Amino acid sequence: MINITFPDGNVRQYEAGVTAMDIAKSISHGLAKKVLSAKVNGDVWDATRPISSDATVQLLTWDDKDGKATFWHSSAHLMAEALEALYPGVKFGTGPATDGGFYYDVDPGQHTISSDDFPKIEQKMLELARHKNTFDRKDISLDEAVRFFEEKGDEYKLELLEKRRAEQADITLYQQGGFIDLCRGPHVPDTSYIKAIKITKVAGAYWQGDENRQQMTRVYGITFPKQKELAEYEKMMEEARQRDHRKLGAELELFMFSDRVGQGLPMWLPKGNQLRDRLMNFLRVEQEKRGYQLVTTPHIGKKDLYITSGHWAKYGEDSFHPITTPKEGEEFLLKPMNCPHHCEIYGHRPHSYKELPLRIAEFGTVYRYEQSGELHGLSRVRGFTQDDAHIFCMPEQLKEEFLSVLDLTKTVLARMGFENFTAQISLRDPDNPDKYIGSDENWRNAEQAIIEATKEAGLTTVTELGEAAFYGPKLDFMVKDALGRSWQLGTIQVDYNLPERFGLEYIGADNQPHRPVMIHRAPFGSMERFISILIEHTGGKFPLWLAPEQFAILPISDRFNDYAKGVQQQLAELDIRGFVDERGEKVGRKIRDAEVRKVPFMLIVGEQEMEGQQVAVRKQGEGDLGAMSVPEFASFFKAQL
Amino acid sequence: MINITFPDGNVRQYEAGVTAMDIAKSISHGLAKKVLSAKVNGDVWDATRPISSDATVQLLTWDDKDGKATFWHSSAHLMAEALEALYPGVKFGTGPATDGGFYYDVDPGQHTISSDDFPKIEQKMLELARHKNTFDRKDISLDEAVRFFEEKGDEYKLELLEKRRAEQADITLYQQGGFIDLCRGPHVPDTSYIKAIKITKVAGAYWQGDENRQQMTRVYGITFPKQKELAEYEKMMEEARQRDHRKLGAELELFMFSDRVGQGLPMWLPKGNQLRDRLMNFLRVEQEKRGYQLVTTPHIGKKDLYITSGHWAKYGEDSFHPITTPKEGEEFLLKPMNCPHHCEIYGHRPHSYKELPLRIAEFGTVYRYEQSGELHGLSRVRGFTQDDAHIFCMPEQLKEEFLSVLDLTKTVLARMGFENFTAQISLRDPDNPDKYIGSDENWRNAEQAIIEATKEAGLTTVTELGEAAFYGPKLDFMVKDALGRSWQLGTIQVDYNLPERFGLEYIGADNQPHRPVMIHRAPFGSMERFISILIEHTGGKFPLWLAPEQFAILPISDRFNDYAKGVQQQLAELDIRGFVDERGEKVGRKIRDAEVRKVPFMLIVGEQEMEGQQVAVRKQGEGDLGAMSVPEFASFFKAQL
Repeated sequence: MINITFPDGNVRQYEAGVTAMDIAKSISHGLAKKVLSAKVNGDVWDATRPISSDATVQLLTWDDKDGKATFWHSSAHLMAEALEALYPGVKFGTGPATDGGFYYDVDPGQHTISSDDFPKIEQKMLELARHKNTFDRKDISLDEAVRFFEEKGDEYKLELLEKRRAEQADITLYQQGGFIDLCRGPHVPDTSYIKAIKITKVAGAYWQGDENRQQMTRVYGITFPKQKELAEYEKMMEEARQRDHRKLGAELELFMFSDRVGQGLPMWLPKGNQLRDRLMNFLRVEQEKRGYQLVTTPHIGKKDLYITSGHWAKYGEDSFHPITTPKEGEEFLLKPMNCPHHCEIYGHRPHSYKELPLRIAEFGTVYRYEQSGELHGLSRVRGFTQDDAHIFCMPEQLKEEFLSVLDLTKTVLARMGFENFTAQISLRDPDNPDKYIGSDENWRNAEQAIIEATKEAGLTTVTELGEAAFYGPKLDFMVKDALGRSWQLGTIQVDYNLPERFGLEYIGADNQPHRPVMIHRAPFGSMERFISILIEHTGGKFPLWLAPEQFAILPISDRFNDYAKGVQQQLAELDIRGFVDERGEKVGRKIRDAEVRKVPFMLIVGEQEMEGQQVAVRKQGEGDLGAMSVPEFASFFKAQL
Repeated sequence: MINITFPDGNVRQYEAGVTAMDIAKSISHGLAKKVLSAKVNGDVWDATRPISSDATVQLLTWDDKDGKATFWHSSAHLMAEALEALYPGVKFGTGPATDGGFYYDVDPGQHTISSDDFPKIEQKMLELARHKNTFDRKDISLDEAVRFFEEKGDEYKLELLEKRRAEQADITLYQQGGFIDLCRGPHVPDTSYIKAIKITKVAGAYWQGDENRQQMTRVYGITFPKQKELAEYEKMMEEARQRDHRKLGAELELFMFSDRVGQGLPMWLPKGNQLRDRLMNFLRVEQEKRGYQLVTTPHIGKKDLYITSGHWAKYGEDSFHPITTPKEGEEFLLKPMNCPHHCEIYGHRPHSYKELPLRIAEFGTVYRYEQSGELHGLSRVRGFTQDDAHIFCMPEQLKEEFLSVLDLTKTVLARMGFENFTAQISLRDPDNPDKYIGSDENWRNAEQAIIEATKEAGLTTVTELGEAAFYGPKLDFMVKDALGRSWQLGTIQVDYNLPERFGLEYIGADNQPHRPVMIHRAPFGSMERFISILIEHTGGKFPLWLAPEQFAILPISDRFNDYAKGVQQQLAELDIRGFVDERGEKVGRKIRDAEVRKVPFMLIVGEQEMEGQQVAVRKQGEGDLGAMSVPEFASFFKAQL
């Protein structure tokens, strides 16, 4: 008999050779049907693999990240089996699970695989899945494996095997039906678990990621244990496509890119710029309430500045290269962050402990080189504006400052309509204390401050040991958007390193010089990334106070344009912004266009409205709300801000 | 007899050989005493030089720029005579008049000239001036001149003569007393005109401005026809020193520079940043009223962008060098101006004539390389923020747009307290029509539009032919500050070139594509330069609405700090900003410190004030205004905004 320890600490006895599936069945038949694999002593195993000695076991289902990964990895094998059947002579590279499905890199030989083939592949996979073939694990010697793939003529697997030989790794094959693959596993018990299948994309990919080697065809797919889940996924994907910030950004004229200006360098068009300004102003006011002081610093700094800060040694080669000058041999860098400039501001005159904390904030535009293939709309760019601040404080002020930053962050996110957020606390690796700069006492103090502050703020947190930067612990915020997707937003980072490197000091109550601690923080993270998330979260229907156009006045004919402009003027004086659609179009067309522009309120004006000094109010997505006088509409509007 | 035509068009007859001085005497003895030189057929001549044929003649006095230049050039000769007397063997380079005096570059041989020597030089000059020596012009051959300076052993003048030989120029010498100089003239009639003398500075300067040649000593001075004028000058200089924006910028903690960040790259400290933000917000509101739309563009652009715009060919080599990337071989430039980005924004979608004028504005930070020796506080920097906008319009809209920009500029300058401003209109050189891009019709239209608009706006203007850029006429604003100094501020520039280079179009009422005209304009010019002028104009006593700190509350002891903070809170809610001086200092010291910080209102609080819920109000530079309740003070304050 062996002892099996469960995640809740319970221990039960089973016969040696028991499988996770057996264990699941011993608990409940319902549970057993859901088990896809299991974590045994920390490693993910087939649910059907015998366990021969005492172990901790965690059963994995579709609800677990590792359960999904098992499911999708098995699906990759199933797809390979289908491809082998459909495209004789196809050869296989590697086929892993990803965060959202799986892919397999294949060499299709004389065949071509295109999106036209997707239905055929899906069909074949479904057909094979119904065979209910088990995924069988086989431990074999490396030489046997080599013989097998030599016979098959698969040079890719042979190359992988040569690597394994160098690593002296154990070799396992997995077989389902007629398909055998070199694979570490694990897999789901049999193919019938895979009930719903979608092949999503083909793309080119270099073998082993090396651009000098053979280009293969990467076939992407996603699968589900239930048909219903695929339907939901497809709906979500369609919704995400509709909300794609690149699509909405162009449709709503928020921002643009230009090849002549350069990839990854967003240009904010008037409406997007208003939105961005409004967000910054909102934060500006909130920051002012909390004692921040805004500064403005240049977008370049001498290379020396970044040698002092350590950034040059760390990132220099991989960044935008230095800017030289026609004379005087100076070298400047585009600033990749604002902290060195803020350290220079702190350091330009002596400080007393009475002045601390000093909170220096800047909406600072920074530039970081990214390869063009990595760029994506506003979410991955080469130039972006951080809602940055650096707090210089005494170590004993850390907790209070954390609480204040948490309060600010919560205020900001709530105002934006993100109710759902969590935080990750990244602490030192306790086994590796030498990796970190700063005294043990300072670290303990800072980690304690973060933990206590998040607890007092009532934040849902995850704690990760060893994830801290070498210069201090940190806190990252994650939000869930309307589609349930998670995004990382702002960070709060403690820093013992830069104050040291810049020799920053304050004169303490003891009249002696001391080193301040620094906190880097940015509630939005960057304006660009935050706005990309906000666009997708709201689908372009921004909170009323942020909407670039809060109303559109739609005259039913030219005759009412002047009345419409009078109404616009009245509303402008009440700080409600919008436009008059003066085009000679039918009002139906004007309504449709205003809907596309996501204008929250449409005010239709014709004979009756003009005579009664009213507007006929229509709310975006909701329809008619009836006629109101302008002051009535204004109060109604303000009540919803 | 010859005909002499005067500036007012009058013609009088004189005998051939008459001098300007003779002419002046024929008009009035008083005038003759003031004449320093004369413009004869457009060239400036000695007042004592005979005129042998018909000519236009303008008499020049101290009130004319060219009159002053003559006076100061003669003063340079007088200084040289004094230096030769004081430092035997001294050799002379060149000694021109400048905008504010004169200098002479000298090789002092074994001597050293320092500021300790200034009184001695001034004394010697005054002594020589009293000799009433005439400045005598001598036409001689180049060979005679060479012999003369060879004898004197003056290699500098010999080098200048060799240059003249290449140019086949006529050679003239001027002599006063024992001093003879190679000189084109003109000069004042005799040395006694120079009544008041100040040697102001010595500095090093390379011979011929070439850093590989001999370093000479540049001795600067200024002189006046009356002692009183020197006294006024010295008072003004002292006042200017007190108001120097670099001095006040540091004292008031408005901005700073850091060697590690780089020379000429200002960093705005919190108080300066507030001032700058307030200025920008003011302009933002005024611009919005006039239909401008704000955008934000990156601080770099691909080299291609500047090849398209023509800037690369024109400025590329002399600017900050291109930024390369680790991969992909891209090249970017720090943006030296915002126009190419704005052209890309205009061009990103089609436009109808109904959308024009399109007014795209940006507070755009640009970077231009300047040699470190040229840098000066905020007035000459390497990075600055333009209050930039580009108006894209139809040619027939130019005048209306000019009127609107003039209205904006007048509104802005008046709000800043600059009452006194003029404009220079720069038009084509009528003799050189091929120098310019754009059709003749467009030019005539644009020049007409500027002239009419400035006239309608009631602006005092000067018109300069041939000063237009090759791509369009322009208008420059000059303001006079409180010390009577002139500063060039904003510009309005018509541009036919960039729309052409970027292929910009709009669809006209005729349904055909047309090319828009572009107007560049910036009322402040740049935030940095404007603020430097504003600081010096106000001496740091900013208009109340701009003051970073509008009040200081000065508790007479610690016991009243809490009451003071309550008052501060009450005022903050009324949008009046300031601080509490909580230091344990005597109130006298607090008042002195607040005066230095140029805080407009000091609110002193003690026992009596706390009991009466009042503040004792003191106005900066004016003294006590008596006790007021907080609401009373607030109304009193608001009335002065």
